[in-house]
Amino acid sequence: MTITMGGKSIILRLELQTEQIHFGQLITVITESGGDVVAIDVIQTGANWTVRDITVTAMEQAQLDKITARIKDLAGVRLVHVSDRTFLLHLGGKIEMKPKSPIQNRDDLSRVYTPDVARVCMAIHENPDNAYKLTIKRNTVAVVSDGSAVLGLGNIGPYAAMPVMEGKAMLFKQFADVDAIPICLSTQSTDKIVETIKHLAPAFGGINLEDISSPRCFEIEERLRNELDIPVFHDDQHGTAVVLYAGLINALKVVGKRIEDAKVVVCGIGAAGIACSNILLAAGVKELIGVDREGALVSTADYANPMWNGYAQRTNPNKREGSLHDIIDGADVFIGLSAGGVLKRADVERMAEQPIVFVMANPTPEIHPDEIEDIAGVIATGRSDFPNQINNVLCFPGIFRAALDCQAAVINEEMKLAASTAIASVILPQELNKLYIIPSVFNQEVVRRIREVVIRAAIQTGVARRIPREFR
Amino acid sequence: MTITMGGKSIILRLELQTEQIHFGQLITVITESGGDVVAIDVIQTGANWTVRDITVTAMEQAQLDKITARIKDLAGVRLVHVSDRTFLLHLGGKIEMKPKSPIQNRDDLSRVYTPDVARVCMAIHENPDNAYKLTIKRNTVAVVSDGSAVLGLGNIGPYAAMPVMEGKAMLFKQFADVDAIPICLSTQSTDKIVETIKHLAPAFGGINLEDISSPRCFEIEERLRNELDIPVFHDDQHGTAVVLYAGLINALKVVGKRIEDAKVVVCGIGAAGIACSNILLAAGVKELIGVDREGALVSTADYANPMWNGYAQRTNPNKREGSLHDIIDGADVFIGLSAGGVLKRADVERMAEQPIVFVMANPTPEIHPDEIEDIAGVIATGRSDFPNQINNVLCFPGIFRAALDCQAAVINEEMKLAASTAIASVILPQELNKLYIIPSVFNQEVVRRIREVVIRAAIQTGVARRIPREFR
Repeated sequence: MTITMGGKSIILRLELQTEQIHFGQLITVITESGGDVVAIDVIQTGANWTVRDITVTAMEQAQLDKITARIKDLAGVRLVHVSDRTFLLHLGGKIEMKPKSPIQNRDDLSRVYTPDVARVCMAIHENPDNAYKLTIKRNTVAVVSDGSAVLGLGNIGPYAAMPVMEGKAMLFKQFADVDAIPICLSTQSTDKIVETIKHLAPAFGGINLEDISSPRCFEIEERLRNELDIPVFHDDQHGTAVVLYAGLINALKVVGKRIEDAKVVVCGIGAAGIACSNILLAAGVKELIGVDREGALVSTADYANPMWNGYAQRTNPNKREGSLHDIIDGADVFIGLSAGGVLKRADVERMAEQPIVFVMANPTPEIHPDEIEDIAGVIATGRSDFPNQINNVLCFPGIFRAALDCQAAVINEEMKLAASTAIASVILPQELNKLYIIPSVFNQEVVRRIREVVIRAAIQTGVARRIPREFR
Repeated sequence: MTITMGGKSIILRLELQTEQIHFGQLITVITESGGDVVAIDVIQTGANWTVRDITVTAMEQAQLDKITARIKDLAGVRLVHVSDRTFLLHLGGKIEMKPKSPIQNRDDLSRVYTPDVARVCMAIHENPDNAYKLTIKRNTVAVVSDGSAVLGLGNIGPYAAMPVMEGKAMLFKQFADVDAIPICLSTQSTDKIVETIKHLAPAFGGINLEDISSPRCFEIEERLRNELDIPVFHDDQHGTAVVLYAGLINALKVVGKRIEDAKVVVCGIGAAGIACSNILLAAGVKELIGVDREGALVSTADYANPMWNGYAQRTNPNKREGSLHDIIDGADVFIGLSAGGVLKRADVERMAEQPIVFVMANPTPEIHPDEIEDIAGVIATGRSDFPNQINNVLCFPGIFRAALDCQAAVINEEMKLAASTAIASVILPQELNKLYIIPSVFNQEVVRRIREVVIRAAIQTGVARRIPREFR
C-alpha cells in the first residue's frame, strides 16, 4: 500500500466532508508544497464524508511538515492522524492469533470445542505428556519482559515494551516457525516475576526472558531454570553470547589465532558481558579479563555487585589490575558491551597483532569502526550499518526451534556452544574474510544448522525428552 | 485430507520398511477387514522407509479395531499411532501466532524490531493510551483457566484444560476477529490467580475467565474487576446468563407472557445459576426462587455457602420453602443448571400453562425433552442435538468484540442485557416458534448485532473509553 521513494514518507488519515472539499483541492495543496501522492486508501465512507489514508512522499521533512500544516487549515478536512511507515506497521499490533483450520460447520465445532474436545482433555489428563502432542505447547514460547531494560531505552515499563516483544514474536515465527506469545508484566519484583512465569508456564514449551534489568535477570533466570521443566533462556545474555562467540570463531580464523591462546578483554560486565565471558570460558579461553567502571575485576577485591565477585573468581587468572587502558596491552580480543567512546585508537594500537575488536555498545560503539579500520584485524559491531553485525536474531529462533523439537528440559552450555559453531559454519572457508565473519539474519541456512547441532548436543547431554526421527 | 462417510473414521500413522512391505498388501488387509482407504498422506520419507497417514473408514468400530490389530502383526510395519479426526485436529495444537506482515528485508526488520521500534516504544512510554493504538492490546483477550472445572470433567488441571481454551481462541477469531491467547495456570489459589492475571494484564484488552470452579470464581472475578482497568468476564457465568436470557425473551413471546409477570424457578445455584438469576432480576423478573440440594433458598436460613446467603436475600420474595417439587407449582419458567433427571414430568404438569422449560444440565438434561414435548410451551437445552441450544458461543465473541472496539473498562449488567436482546432480535417475529427461539452459532448476524447494541450500552453507561466513529 505504501512505498518509499528515496525521500521521506508519511500517511495522512483524513476525514473529508465531501460537500466542502474536493479531492483535487487536496492534491493541489500536497503537490504545491513539494509532496507526491503515492497511494490513496479508502478507510470508511458515509453519505457525505469519507475517511482516507493518503500516502505522501517528499524529499525533505520540511516539505511534509508544510503539507501537514496546510491541510489542517483546509475547510472540510479533519486530520485524524499522521503516521510514518513504522508507526503504520504497528497500528493494532504486529501479530495475530489464528486458527490452524476453519470451523465451518457443526461437526467442526463439536470436534474443536464441546462436546468432543472432552476426549482430548481426558487423554492429556490421563497422560500429561500428551500436552506436547495435543496442545500448542509443542511449538509455543512465551516472550516475557517486565519492561525494565528495553533496548537502550531503560525502564520504560510493560506497555512500552510490547512493540519489541511483538517484533520478537514475528521473528520467531518467520525465521523458525515458532509460535511466540508476548507477555509484558506489570511487576518488577523478582519474586513476583518468578511466581507469575511459573503459574503461566503450562501452555508453553519454553520461556524467552527479554529486556529484564541486571542483576535481577540472573536470579529470575536461575530460579526459573531450577523450578520449571521447560527451557528458560534470557536472550539478552545468552543470545548475545552465542552470536558473539560465533563471530569470534570466524574472526580467529581470519587472523590465524587459536582461542586457547587468545588474551580476551571484556568491557562492560553487565548481563550480556557476564554471559559472553561465560561462553568464552566454556569455549576454552584461558586468559579473560573483565573491565568495568572500576577497572579490571580481580578476585582480591570485594565488590558491591555480587555477580562481580563470582565473576572475578572465574577470570583474570594473573590478577591484573588497572583501567581498561592498562589492561588492553597485548590483548588479542576486545569485547565491548559498555558505552560509546570508551575505547581509543591508542588502546587498539597497543593490542596484539591483528587485534579483534568487537564494539557492540548501541547505538554508539565503543569506538567508531572507521577510526581503527586500518589497524584492526577484524571489527564487529551491534549495528546493521557496518559489516559483521552481532545480532541475536541469528540465535533465538534456531535455538528454540531445536529445544522445542527435542522437548529439551533446559538450554545448556553445550547447546549454546553448538549454536555458535553452527552459525559460524554457515560461512564457507572460501567466503570468510575480515568483513564477513557473521551470516545475514536472512540466511535460511542459519536456523537449519542451529537446529541440527543443538538437538544433537541436547541428546548427547541427556536433556532431550524426545528424539526426532532423523536423529534416531 | 480426511472425510467421514457416515461410519467411523480413523487415521493410522504407519512407518513402513519399503523393502519388507508393499503398499498393496496393506490395502488388502484394510479392505479384507471391512475398511475403506479414503486418503493417504506422506509424512516423511527416507531411502528405505516411509511414514504415511492412512485415513480409513468403516461402518463399525469393530472393523477398525480388527484393521488396527492386523496391521500391528504385519512384518515391516510399525504402527506409530492411531488418531480419529478429533485427535488429528488437535495434533500440535489448534491455533498459531502469525505476523500480520512478512519481514522481507533489512528495512522491514529495522521497522518492526530494532532500531526503529524504539520510536514506537517511546510513543507508548510518553502516552500509555497509545498501547491501544500501537500494540495487540486493542484486539487481544486472555482466555484464562486454572483447569479446576473444565466442561463437565471436573478438576483436570491446566494441561488438560488447554484444548478447551484453544478451541475458545479459535471461536473468538473466527466469529469476531478477536485474538485470544489461552493461558492455563499451574495454581488454584485464589490469591495467586488474581495476582498472576494482574501481572500479565498489560498486553491484553480483556480477560475471559473460563472453567474456574465455584465459589472461587466469584471472588477472582470480583477482585480482578476492581483492580484491573480492562473488562473481566467469567464466561461460564455471564455468557450462559446472556444466552439464557436471550432465549427467555423469545420463549416468553412464543407463549405470550411478560417477564414481569413470570414466576421463575432456577434449579442449581452454582456459578451459572447465580449469574442467570442475576440477569433475570436485572431484566425485571419479580418472583424468582432458587433451588439447590437443600431445597428453595430462603433468606430466613443460614447457609454454609456465603454466595447462597446473599442470593437468598435478593430472591424468593414470598419466602417459600420446600423441595423443587413443592416450589415448581404454578411456575411459568424452569431454569435448570443442575444435574440430569432432577425434573419429573409430574413437576412440569404442575407448572403454569404453557410452561417454559430450560433444561441445561450437560450432558444429560434435567428431563429428557421427549418426555414433556406434549405439555411444555417451549423447551431449550444445552445440547446441539435438540432444538433451542443455549450455547454461550453465541455471546462471548460478540460481547468482547464490542468491549474491545469501545475500549470498555468493564462489561456491566447493561451491556449483558443488551447482548441478550441483540441475540433474541436475530430471529424475526415471523420466524419465531417454539422450536426456534435461539439463532444458530453460525448466524453471522449475531456478532454484528451484539457489537452494535453493546457498544451503545457501554457509551450510555459511561464505561466506553473510545467512541467508534459510527456511534458519534
